[in-house]
Amino acid sequence: MTTLDLLIGNLSRLPGVGRKSASRIAYYLLKADRSFVDTIAREIAELKDRIKVCSVCGNYTEEDPCSICNDPRRDRTLLCVVEQSQDVATIESTNEFKGLYHVLMGVLSPIDGVGPENLNFARLLHRVRSEGIEEVIVATNPTVEGDTTGLYVVRLLKDSSAKVSRLASGLPVGGDLEYADRLTLARSLKGRTPLTQ
Amino acid sequence: MTTLDLLIGNLSRLPGVGRKSASRIAYYLLKADRSFVDTIAREIAELKDRIKVCSVCGNYTEEDPCSICNDPRRDRTLLCVVEQSQDVATIESTNEFKGLYHVLMGVLSPIDGVGPENLNFARLLHRVRSEGIEEVIVATNPTVEGDTTGLYVVRLLKDSSAKVSRLASGLPVGGDLEYADRLTLARSLKGRTPLTQ
Repeated sequence: MTTLDLLIGNLSRLPGVGRKSASRIAYYLLKADRSFVDTIAREIAELKDRIKVCSVCGNYTEEDPCSICNDPRRDRTLLCVVEQSQDVATIESTNEFKGLYHVLMGVLSPIDGVGPENLNFARLLHRVRSEGIEEVIVATNPTVEGDTTGLYVVRLLKDSSAKVSRLASGLPVGGDLEYADRLTLARSLKGRTPLTQ
Repeated sequence: MTTLDLLIGNLSRLPGVGRKSASRIAYYLLKADRSFVDTIAREIAELKDRIKVCSVCGNYTEEDPCSICNDPRRDRTLLCVVEQSQDVATIESTNEFKGLYHVLMGVLSPIDGVGPENLNFARLLHRVRSEGIEEVIVATNPTVEGDTTGLYVVRLLKDSSAKVSRLASGLPVGGDLEYADRLTLARSLKGRTPLTQ
C-alpha cells in the first residue's frame, strides 16, 4: 500500500465520500497549493484538541460555556431541544430563534440500543427546573425517533411549569401538493393554521 | 470564525464536496476515533513530501522510477498514453494491460490555454524513439479534447516506426441501445467488430 492508497482508503471512510470521490480528493490534494494542504491537515489534527462540549447545553464549542449560552442578549426563557450539534448551526442560520439550545447528542432509538440513559436528559431536566425556562421547543427531526423523543421530553417535564412545543410539520415552502407524500400532507392538514387578514 | 467553520470552509473547496458534505465530514471527524483523525491529518500533511512524479512516465510515485516502469515483467514494447495519473490506476484495475504508461499531465485544450508545450510530449517522443516501443495506445478520454490529443500523438510519432491505436468507443457493457446517445451509437456502428464463431 502506498501513501496515496492509504489516504484514499481513509478518505473513503468519511460520510458521503465513496471510493471515487476519495480518489478525486487525494489527487486534487496532490496538485493543490502546499499552503492549502498544510492548513487542512493542521485543522483536522487540531480539531479534537480545540473543540469541546459545552457543559451547559452540550453543543460543540471552543470556549466553555459556548458563545450562545454566554450571550446576554439571548432569551433565557426559551429552550430549543435538538438532536445534535449540527442542528444548532442549522437553526441559527434562519435567524429566527433567539433563545437557548439543548443538545441531546442523539435520539431515542430502541432498535439501535439508544435509551433515555444514553441521552442528555438529566441535564435538560435540571436546566428547566433551575434556569427559569418557560417554553421548551422540541426540534428533533420529524421521524419516528424524533417524535418519540419529543413525547419523552413532554413526560420528563410534566411536573415542571414549562410549556413543551414541537416544530411544525407540513409542506415545504415552495413545494408542490402533487409531490408531497401522504404523511406530510396529512400532517399539514392536521396542523393547519388560521389565515388572518 | 471558529476552527470548525474554518475546516468546513476548507473541506468544501475539495472536489465533489459541497457545504453540506463538508459540514457532515467535520462533525464526523469530531466524533471519530482520535487515532483515525490523527492518521488522516498526518497522511494529508505528508502527501506532498512523499509523492513525486516519475521521471520516466510522469505518474505519481513514491520511488523514482515508479514501480510500473521498474517492473521487469511488463511488456516494454507497448506504451499506453493517458491524460492523468488517476487513469493509470483505473486501467491497472482492469488487469488487462501489461505494457508501460505515459502520463501527459493534461489534454490539449486551446480554450483553456493548454497547448502541446504544456504537456509531456517531448518525453513521449524521446521514449518512443529510444525505448523500442512498437505500439502506442492513446487512452485519453473519448471527448473532443481527448480525440484532438490522440490525433496530435499520431502526428508527433509519424516518423517513428511505432503503430498508434486508440481505445475503442462504443456502447458500455450492460447498457441499453435505447438509452445510448446518438454519438456513441454512431461510433459503435463505425467501430463494429467482426463476430467470429
